Amino acid sequence: MTIKDDFQDQDSREKFIQDLSSQELHQRRRVPVGVLGATGNVGQKLLMLIDKHQWFKVTAVAASEKSQGKSYKEAVEWRMPVPLSEEIGELEVMAPEPNLPCKIVFSCLDGNIAGEIEQKFAKNGYAVISCARSHRMDPKVPLFIPEVNMQHLELLKFQNFPNRGLIIAKPNCAVIGLMMALRPLQLEFGIEAVHVVTMQSISGAGFPGVPSMAIADNIIPYIANEEDRLVEEPAKIFGTIDVDHIEPYPMNISATCTRVPVTEGHLEVVSVKLKEKATLEQVKRAFKEFSSPLEELKLPSAPSYPIHYFEENDMPQPKLQRDLERGMAVSVGRLRPDSLMDYKFVLLSHNTVRGAAGGAILIAELLVKNGYIFW
Amino acid sequence: MTIKDDFQDQDSREKFIQDLSSQELHQRRRVPVGVLGATGNVGQKLLMLIDKHQWFKVTAVAASEKSQGKSYKEAVEWRMPVPLSEEIGELEVMAPEPNLPCKIVFSCLDGNIAGEIEQKFAKNGYAVISCARSHRMDPKVPLFIPEVNMQHLELLKFQNFPNRGLIIAKPNCAVIGLMMALRPLQLEFGIEAVHVVTMQSISGAGFPGVPSMAIADNIIPYIANEEDRLVEEPAKIFGTIDVDHIEPYPMNISATCTRVPVTEGHLEVVSVKLKEKATLEQVKRAFKEFSSPLEELKLPSAPSYPIHYFEENDMPQPKLQRDLERGMAVSVGRLRPDSLMDYKFVLLSHNTVRGAAGGAILIAELLVKNGYIFW
Amino acid sequence: MTIKDDFQDQDSREKFIQDLSSQELHQRRRVPVGVLGATGNVGQKLLMLIDKHQWFKVTAVAASEKSQGKSYKEAVEWRMPVPLSEEIGELEVMAPEPNLPCKIVFSCLDGNIAGEIEQKFAKNGYAVISCARSHRMDPKVPLFIPEVNMQHLELLKFQNFPNRGLIIAKPNCAVIGLMMALRPLQLEFGIEAVHVVTMQSISGAGFPGVPSMAIADNIIPYIANEEDRLVEEPAKIFGTIDVDHIEPYPMNISATCTRVPVTEGHLEVVSVKLKEKATLEQVKRAFKEFSSPLEELKLPSAPSYPIHYFEENDMPQPKLQRDLERGMAVSVGRLRPDSLMDYKFVLLSHNTVRGAAGGAILIAELLVKNGYIFW
Amino acid sequence: MTIKDDFQDQDSREKFIQDLSSQELHQRRRVPVGVLGATGNVGQKLLMLIDKHQWFKVTAVAASEKSQGKSYKEAVEWRMPVPLSEEIGELEVMAPEPNLPCKIVFSCLDGNIAGEIEQKFAKNGYAVISCARSHRMDPKVPLFIPEVNMQHLELLKFQNFPNRGLIIAKPNCAVIGLMMALRPLQLEFGIEAVHVVTMQSISGAGFPGVPSMAIADNIIPYIANEEDRLVEEPAKIFGTIDVDHIEPYPMNISATCTRVPVTEGHLEVVSVKLKEKATLEQVKRAFKEFSSPLEELKLPSAPSYPIHYFEENDMPQPKLQRDLERGMAVSVGRLRPDSLMDYKFVLLSHNTVRGAAGGAILIAELLVKNGYIFW
Repeated sequence: MTIKDDFQDQDSREKFIQDLSSQELHQRRRVPVGVLGATGNVGQKLLMLIDKHQWFKVTAVAASEKSQGKSYKEAVEWRMPVPLSEEIGELEVMAPEPNLPCKIVFSCLDGNIAGEIEQKFAKNGYAVISCARSHRMDPKVPLFIPEVNMQHLELLKFQNFPNRGLIIAKPNCAVIGLMMALRPLQLEFGIEAVHVVTMQSISGAGFPGVPSMAIADNIIPYIANEEDRLVEEPAKIFGTIDVDHIEPYPMNISATCTRVPVTEGHLEVVSVKLKEKATLEQVKRAFKEFSSPLEELKLPSAPSYPIHYFEENDMPQPKLQRDLERGMAVSVGRLRPDSLMDYKFVLLSHNTVRGAAGGAILIAELLVKNGYIFW
Repeated sequence: MTIKDDFQDQDSREKFIQDLSSQELHQRRRVPVGVLGATGNVGQKLLMLIDKHQWFKVTAVAASEKSQGKSYKEAVEWRMPVPLSEEIGELEVMAPEPNLPCKIVFSCLDGNIAGEIEQKFAKNGYAVISCARSHRMDPKVPLFIPEVNMQHLELLKFQNFPNRGLIIAKPNCAVIGLMMALRPLQLEFGIEAVHVVTMQSISGAGFPGVPSMAIADNIIPYIANEEDRLVEEPAKIFGTIDVDHIEPYPMNISATCTRVPVTEGHLEVVSVKLKEKATLEQVKRAFKEFSSPLEELKLPSAPSYPIHYFEENDMPQPKLQRDLERGMAVSVGRLRPDSLMDYKFVLLSHNTVRGAAGGAILIAELLVKNGYIFW
Repeated sequence: MTIKDDFQDQDSREKFIQDLSSQELHQRRRVPVGVLGATGNVGQKLLMLIDKHQWFKVTAVAASEKSQGKSYKEAVEWRMPVPLSEEIGELEVMAPEPNLPCKIVFSCLDGNIAGEIEQKFAKNGYAVISCARSHRMDPKVPLFIPEVNMQHLELLKFQNFPNRGLIIAKPNCAVIGLMMALRPLQLEFGIEAVHVVTMQSISGAGFPGVPSMAIADNIIPYIANEEDRLVEEPAKIFGTIDVDHIEPYPMNISATCTRVPVTEGHLEVVSVKLKEKATLEQVKRAFKEFSSPLEELKLPSAPSYPIHYFEENDMPQPKLQRDLERGMAVSVGRLRPDSLMDYKFVLLSHNTVRGAAGGAILIAELLVKNGYIFW
Repeated sequence: MTIKDDFQDQDSREKFIQDLSSQELHQRRRVPVGVLGATGNVGQKLLMLIDKHQWFKVTAVAASEKSQGKSYKEAVEWRMPVPLSEEIGELEVMAPEPNLPCKIVFSCLDGNIAGEIEQKFAKNGYAVISCARSHRMDPKVPLFIPEVNMQHLELLKFQNFPNRGLIIAKPNCAVIGLMMALRPLQLEFGIEAVHVVTMQSISGAGFPGVPSMAIADNIIPYIANEEDRLVEEPAKIFGTIDVDHIEPYPMNISATCTRVPVTEGHLEVVSVKLKEKATLEQVKRAFKEFSSPLEELKLPSAPSYPIHYFEENDMPQPKLQRDLERGMAVSVGRLRPDSLMDYKFVLLSHNTVRGAAGGAILIAELLVKNGYIFW
């Protein structure tokens, strides 16, 4: 029995699915969502992206004590390039307590406090989609990228939260791009080892984040804890479900993470050793023909092509490709043989869209479409 | 018989060496040097660095036809952060023909034309120190970094240019930093393989070089021909002399070169596989205890320590370390085990000083000190 | 008799206007447009913005000799953040000669050659919308910003080109933002003098434009000829039609133009002396209540509000406001009394959208809507 | 009776002045100095610049509680491009209390706490040179730029601190460059009004200062309180002493301050209205012939020429001129008539050297040379 079979009322479910294809009905029944950590950088981005979403309606924003009680527009120092929506601006900022008037909560909380709060929400029947790191390595929590490990949703049925409460975690922003690019290779040839050097944009550090004096005209060849995440998260994401937990995918990963003076977009230089021999043409085809397992689901935020493959020798570049498919696609280029491993290439992904806010919204869309959300 | 033994007049040689330790005499007898390609970026940097050098006096500047006949200050669009010296500004720009009133010529010519011109100068008895790529892989031309392959000067005696003419080539700027950092490891443990990802500053592309619209807020993950140089030059530099040519050092190198929005300083992320097992402590000690083979020579431009080793987890950084030892040292940090190769680390070098103009001047100093220049 | 009355066939005109409100019909009858200088930076931006425009269809691209005969996608080094449309990519690049299969031509030619070519096109019945400077100060050519000097379209009837040929010029990019911001003040209080200091982004210089080494971590306090344009163009734009030419608006302007390391968006610091006394509140209201004379025309590219007024003390900022209303609005903030003139404020406009490609498209839309284009 | 006449022992004074010209003696008797707020950005810069100073020896560093008791090298996160001197690194960080073993204290404290602490030090006989804003407008405290208002040192005799205690304040960093550039004009022609727009570098905001996400690829057209300082400080600096206070110089100033993505160097666009008519040539000559009133004093940090005048139409630029005369000179260029005021020009000064740490050291040098310091 999957959670999807667990609908308490079959009619509701039918109606629900119908709703999704009926724009009009849907407008009346958009899923109420809340954002925890709504004044921070990821919170703002998420509110910007989800505003006017055809399936979701922001009904709650929560933040730390000093913001609570104010209207969101008073509490926030809005730094997005699109004006704050009036509707959201009028919402009162609440405490991140499980009495928020919504069904889904996006947790954009600081990793130090997110864990406990997210648990409380799940225990109270909320679907929690977390951008924080707290539950990423929790054996019952899918570390989730819809195009990569859809099957891991099965884990949700072992979470045992009441009232369809659930927790699902978005991986680290640099991991998301890497996993999306590696997925077709892993599927077709298997992956034995990965060597990755990242050049991560300043927005990945949030706000205030990196001081300008530290990064202007500079590179900082270190990001606290980031390399560990690039080593441990991928194995879980590519892992296979063994009854109630995930058996990690055995893969040797070596990572060096650096911060560069770029506003948005993580670029990663990857060398990969495959399990099965493959020609350059086969690898290229794997990238080019990788099609989204989301394709038929018509999720509003899903990219038409999760991977865009570039033949040009100087692509991808953050400034030119980060916004492809509204920032939801990963760009791959410079594929060539590697004298040490098998092949090497360069990938780019938009760290605050695909790697954070947009990635979280896509998860929410999938949950709704697949019947995990009931409202 | 080495060139050094070939002094035509033993007394001259004695006097010469004496001069070098006598500041006063030396002022009267500074070696006359010329710069080919003097109006370009490397040419300007070289003139800035060599101006008021205690051993050298700039007596000739040459450039392309449109500058010839003008005074240097009229011909050049000076972009250095230090004002152009009046003395140099008054020099007349000449054609790059071997009738320049000097003994050493620094070739900062474009690689497409440098080769032939440099040959002409050497055949006319000039000592040519080349920043261009033309002769780098020529079997009789040392590809030279004083601290790394001093013994390759022996090759000069096979060049057979008249009147002590000679050609010596400075390696590619990204190669110089890499070789200096690898040298202690190669000496102590041997190197089997190297994986390197570079983040190279915009000054490496000269002027006008990279358009600001192409690199502002961006990374370009490709530099034409650069990866080939990082693969082929190191083997020659670490090679051993076999009678009249260099036997390359067998080493598997994989390189990815990128351009980043940093004004000066190439940062390189390196993984290395050693021939002999070594502990982290041993590797660290190799870096820290590497002492310059130039030490006793007291060359004005030589760094006291060719390698500066950093224990801090976020060093080296271009902005903080590129100017160490007036830009002539290489900084190494983030040394740690690598799960794929043996160890990995990050290095930084100043590409237009150590990697170009300053490196060329250091070579000239060594030639003078070792008696290769006779004036 | 105005040109608008000059329809050869009244029915056509009726039908034409009807078409504009009928989406379906329109799709079949989009106006064929061509772009001269299509491979340059403004040309690319224009093609990116106009692709899939509901009123226009790109049917011709022209560029210099070395591109002619190639398909556009072969000829261009596409640097836009949105992929090149396939349809446009397939077009053959032609010579900028008046045999292009289109009705409107956008001239993105270099100012040195634009003048003559634009004349040829107009003489052959094309409507020429010029981003070049050649005809800006021509007494019979409107120097045109739809929201500012709509009445200057009257000049077109004196151009006397056959077959409804016409030339209309878009002002300098820094002038457009300034004029839009000053317009409400000029309308309500009159303007006596303006002191303006611009901080202009690198995209204003085109491609390759400013070398990265020249502008990274730097400001260049000079842009060739730019200050002259800021002095002479505004007087014409605010001028009044006197029969067949424009009588310039008397206004004392002092301008200093600088280039700053920002990718997009010109910021201008303005002090203004008014003809009539006005309170701060009145000036603020003038900005806030300025409504677009285009409002009723429903032009696709027109901003809902030409001016966005900001009360925050640190706005507008290039990164936060340049994309307001898809880059077509001007942002104004920091309004306060000036001890030397009357008031001072800061304005921001998107130089390659509002100030170039988008501004040109808006002019085309207005020409179509007002019946100047007949196809 | 001036303080200078107040030497308790005439012989000491003679000896002191003798010492200053005797390098050897001086080495043994360098003035002991302390730095308050030593771990901050200005504090670090000051320690970098003063290390190995021939007249001063750093004997005390003080900072906030969390650093106290640690060695300086443990307490500081050193971000200067030159390694921390070992000698200073070993100093124990103390509380900013007037028991520090030194004679001069440089106050690099935060403006919110500096005032009271500086008073305490002065009352205990220390010479306080303040980089903080606390006492700048205090009627008895010279707001001091040695080349501009040397005569204001006379105020010190009215401070009435015991044991030669004194407080002297360095102006705001943007004010220093402006005053130095205006000084020759004020001296020769008088100044009636000034319109200034600043483009200030990120280092002016200290560390962590401006978040990189806020300023990368952006301009912030506002710096809190900065415009007020540009209006009020100049009048005092150009003021004349009236017995025991300064009568401000009447001058109408309009200022707009912006923050730009440049690492070091404040650029200012200035229009000026003179009291007496002057030709362009006269104004230019005033700039070019302005000679330092410090010239004969041979202070180690004094620039040979306080103002460098540039004829080139695109100078000065932060990257090219900020380091002129080790960052202590002001660069002026683009002088031309202004249609609204009389003349306009652009100036550049190094904000953390001339505008902060270097400017403070120069003041200390002058105090020593003129006999205000007794140790």
